Amino acid sequence: MQTFKIEPLIIVIFGASGDLARRKLIPAIYDLFSRGLLPKNFALLGVGRTKYTDDQFRQESFLGNNFLDNPAGTEDAGSDFSNHLFYQALDTSDVAQYELLKSRLDQLDQNFNTKGNCIFYLSTPPSLYGTIPAALAAHGLHQHPSGFRRLVIEKPFGYDLVSAVKLNRTLRGYFLEDNIFRIDHYLGKETVQNLLVTRFSNGIFEPLWNRNYIQHIEITSAEDIGVEGRGGYYDSSGAMRDMLQNHLLQLVALVAMEPPIAPTATAIRSEKNKLFQSMMEVPSAQVRQVAIRGQYLQSHIRGKVVRGYREEPGVDEKSRTETFAALKFSIENWRWSGVPFYIRTGKRLPTRVAEITITFRKPPQRLFRSETDLMNQANNQLVIRIQPDEGLLLNFAVKKPGDSFLASNVGMDFRYSELGDADIPEAYERLLLDCIKGDSTLFAHGESVELSWRFIDPILQAWQHDPEIPIYGYPAGSWGPIEADGLIEDTDLKWRNPCRRLTSDTNFCEL
Amino acid sequence: MQTFKIEPLIIVIFGASGDLARRKLIPAIYDLFSRGLLPKNFALLGVGRTKYTDDQFRQESFLGNNFLDNPAGTEDAGSDFSNHLFYQALDTSDVAQYELLKSRLDQLDQNFNTKGNCIFYLSTPPSLYGTIPAALAAHGLHQHPSGFRRLVIEKPFGYDLVSAVKLNRTLRGYFLEDNIFRIDHYLGKETVQNLLVTRFSNGIFEPLWNRNYIQHIEITSAEDIGVEGRGGYYDSSGAMRDMLQNHLLQLVALVAMEPPIAPTATAIRSEKNKLFQSMMEVPSAQVRQVAIRGQYLQSHIRGKVVRGYREEPGVDEKSRTETFAALKFSIENWRWSGVPFYIRTGKRLPTRVAEITITFRKPPQRLFRSETDLMNQANNQLVIRIQPDEGLLLNFAVKKPGDSFLASNVGMDFRYSELGDADIPEAYERLLLDCIKGDSTLFAHGESVELSWRFIDPILQAWQHDPEIPIYGYPAGSWGPIEADGLIEDTDLKWRNPCRRLTSDTNFCEL
Repeated sequence: MQTFKIEPLIIVIFGASGDLARRKLIPAIYDLFSRGLLPKNFALLGVGRTKYTDDQFRQESFLGNNFLDNPAGTEDAGSDFSNHLFYQALDTSDVAQYELLKSRLDQLDQNFNTKGNCIFYLSTPPSLYGTIPAALAAHGLHQHPSGFRRLVIEKPFGYDLVSAVKLNRTLRGYFLEDNIFRIDHYLGKETVQNLLVTRFSNGIFEPLWNRNYIQHIEITSAEDIGVEGRGGYYDSSGAMRDMLQNHLLQLVALVAMEPPIAPTATAIRSEKNKLFQSMMEVPSAQVRQVAIRGQYLQSHIRGKVVRGYREEPGVDEKSRTETFAALKFSIENWRWSGVPFYIRTGKRLPTRVAEITITFRKPPQRLFRSETDLMNQANNQLVIRIQPDEGLLLNFAVKKPGDSFLASNVGMDFRYSELGDADIPEAYERLLLDCIKGDSTLFAHGESVELSWRFIDPILQAWQHDPEIPIYGYPAGSWGPIEADGLIEDTDLKWRNPCRRLTSDTNFCEL
Repeated sequence: MQTFKIEPLIIVIFGASGDLARRKLIPAIYDLFSRGLLPKNFALLGVGRTKYTDDQFRQESFLGNNFLDNPAGTEDAGSDFSNHLFYQALDTSDVAQYELLKSRLDQLDQNFNTKGNCIFYLSTPPSLYGTIPAALAAHGLHQHPSGFRRLVIEKPFGYDLVSAVKLNRTLRGYFLEDNIFRIDHYLGKETVQNLLVTRFSNGIFEPLWNRNYIQHIEITSAEDIGVEGRGGYYDSSGAMRDMLQNHLLQLVALVAMEPPIAPTATAIRSEKNKLFQSMMEVPSAQVRQVAIRGQYLQSHIRGKVVRGYREEPGVDEKSRTETFAALKFSIENWRWSGVPFYIRTGKRLPTRVAEITITFRKPPQRLFRSETDLMNQANNQLVIRIQPDEGLLLNFAVKKPGDSFLASNVGMDFRYSELGDADIPEAYERLLLDCIKGDSTLFAHGESVELSWRFIDPILQAWQHDPEIPIYGYPAGSWGPIEADGLIEDTDLKWRNPCRRLTSDTNFCEL
């Protein structure tokens, strides 16, 4: 393991008066502070268009904030933390005004003795991902002779391959790649990290983790909500860009990559990139067969009318943006050749869930009949549940009690909550701490971003330009268009339709 | 699967007035009857020295029997079953008297139209295992021109290799091997049978089931009771003969044998015998190192004095009979070469438990540190629990919740009771039904018996004749002599000390 030291520092949040900053970032930083993980020499400078004073900012973003786990008023840590908060009003698109930021930073650096260390967190629209770094650089704020300067941005990292490459080029014009921290909050989740530990800390899983023993792998990331007032943004993005290109492909990489030589950012990134490079690009003529897109339609859920995607505010009434995407692909390397991967994501599905299902091959010889023999003897499955009800489920066969030798399918599970959830840090908290430490293991590297776009881009191109490729409607509250079921060609197999509770019985899923 | 038909038949129980018949056999047969698994053309003839009439026998062995699950008086099935019970007083050592048995059988055969089918169950001291078959043969009862004649005996099947071979020769002088059913009630247990289904119905276990992935295998069969009034019998037997030679070696065979070509008695027996033949005989010079014997000593358990073995009634005060035996051995075949097997059994251990623990090798590379890193990263383990709390437990590592990449050891389990225990037949019931069907899958074959004696005999010989080999004392209520711990030479590993409840945490075992 690498070890990281926590240095004095200033965190600058652009977009500090916004929703994300108030709901997620500042509470996460406060939690780190309460847990004693931040140095005494620490300041947080909010930057935004709103004209707050320091005191107003403290009140609005922290003291009056309902999102805190530990309400600030109830203990000394709250008012103590408040003394580290500052605010600078700024029109971020006006380069000249960054002089104000510069002098404010100099002043805080002196007052808190932060040795020039600074993290710039861009909690802003992606359109500013070029502007702000350029303006910082214009005033020499992007680097420091002895301290570190880091840049944190959130997805989307581009809109397609061309824009992603362009964004990387821009960012790298001002910051070294090692100082660019691209947040994928999925990677901050415990069970995503747990994937690495589960795979590589156990003698029993890795020997089975290849084409000899695995029949196929599926990943489902489902939301039960619709676009929830974000129709305007979503309609220019869609399920493929919003979820699949980043979150799902990161999960594919973690589940399928070779063991890294060490648990370091560099070693893991190297294996991820090799994996992305082995994913077979889909020829445009085949997009229609292996990539299914859908849009939710109006339906009734528990007696209530739920409107269709095209009826959502901000959505074009002729929109062809997908709210569901499912994909079949293969990874042509020594480990995975011949093993199909199926991934899907969507809005307005029956439940909110994210999980990876490893379906193992059947035993080469069927010695014992199954209880449901006429249907089929089930394959063994390992389900890695990411959310909710995080944990692992192993489905296998035992003897059915009684006088015969019939097999019965059962499950055994481990729930992460059994370890006590008091200590599970929120994803943002974990990621912020890693960024403060300078550990980029859980962040998306620029090269990974480009490689995953390279895989997705041809599909998006075909969807955009080939009028022959349909976008299927599906009733809100269903598991997407039935055409997605056709991706899995094996007659024995279908998608596992997971419930909210991690369970081996997928037949009785509450809606 | 083979299918078996249930034919009309008479079951003759020798020793019918004895304890086992009343407590186990007759209740088991009654349960089969209640479940509709016995034909209408069925009679049970008790044979014994006690001079019962049929009615007295019905009353003593059944109607007044407290051991029944369904008390007989409460339903019609009880009085109905009672009409199938008969008794014949007989001095089994007097060949002439078997004429009485013959005419009684002829009469029952006519009355119940049992077509000559007959099972002779010897619930008698082993000293009669030669006498009774010889007397049956003297009157031509051992065979029938059209019906079947089967012989059922219980362990011990011999006292050492020589006597076992002799017993087999005697039995086979009168009955065909296929008609000799040697009961090992261990093999009638659900989880023992489940071992076969678990190993061979799942795609995930069999690939790991060999020397590449398994570090060692241990089997523990512990009793918390002492000799309980059977001191006289036990002192002429001991742990090795009473438990290890039969029960434990049968478990070894089931856990280690190659997959049979079919789930038939013949195919499974063939694999078991190959396995026994691959077990490396212990050279007498090494017995002292790999075979540890012990005797329990007086101690205090929960404030009560528990007497030592040599103080038990019926036990020689200088007895060198072992109440504990532990053994290390290897199986030299392609699957197991280099994997040590450790088996142990004993009386007056902390709890009553039987389980098999498969300890897997550690991953080849340690990417993530363990929470208990200074001690060690634990090996993965699969625990197959036979009794009590039957089920499976898988111990593995997951990420410890928090900011780091520490691994934490957790367990997931499956308890057989989750499937509903209403249908789990008692071992005797299962075995009797199999014998009635003519299915010998779960019975010990004569060749297996000889092969397991062949393995054990040199150790027993050395124990008996080499005065240099100590018998170690251990306090009643402990896990046997500490010398047994020395069998496992790996400094990281020790015996798993199981609790009454199937659990991954073996540190807090209630005594």
